[in-house]
Amino acid sequence: MLVLITYDVNTETAAGKSRLRKVAKQCVNYGTRVQNSVFECVLDPGQCLMLKAALTELIDENVDSLRFYYLGNQNKARVEHVGVNKGINVKEPLIF
Amino acid sequence: MLVLITYDVNTETAAGKSRLRKVAKQCVNYGTRVQNSVFECVLDPGQCLMLKAALTELIDENVDSLRFYYLGNQNKARVEHVGVNKGINVKEPLIF
Repeated sequence: MLVLITYDVNTETAAGKSRLRKVAKQCVNYGTRVQNSVFECVLDPGQCLMLKAALTELIDENVDSLRFYYLGNQNKARVEHVGVNKGINVKEPLIF
Repeated sequence: MLVLITYDVNTETAAGKSRLRKVAKQCVNYGTRVQNSVFECVLDPGQCLMLKAALTELIDENVDSLRFYYLGNQNKARVEHVGVNKGINVKEPLIF
């Protein structure tokens, strides 16, 4: 199942920057970074639950957020991209 | 049709910050801001083409990017949210 994960992590503090790095690092293990805070992951239900739990544990729910879009069969997902390709194999999280 | 729009705008320059504001402002006209750079828009095919054209015109394709996910019927889209609600009716673009 293709799962799109988007996140907002508040980086006003050093702790926030650290959370952002950890969230990105966790997502990199499971999928493809298509934008700075957007990952596309192909996951089975077990992996999906594990990743969701891990990310939920990492964020501060008072100031950060995660969204999970379940896009179904990856061959059927309709996606268009315009503009620069962010280097989908980037391993290091980017901080803005 | 529910269309998820995600964008990365490079804000290293003043021009980039201006592009980010304009992209966000354009999206606000068509949908709901669910995260800082993520909008959910309910669009008919004509609106979708118009918005895509407008956003493509605004960005610098060498350093910015847009992604459009066509999620079909909004009642069928499977989405989960964890954490803070970013104030979905915010009218002002946020800059990071």
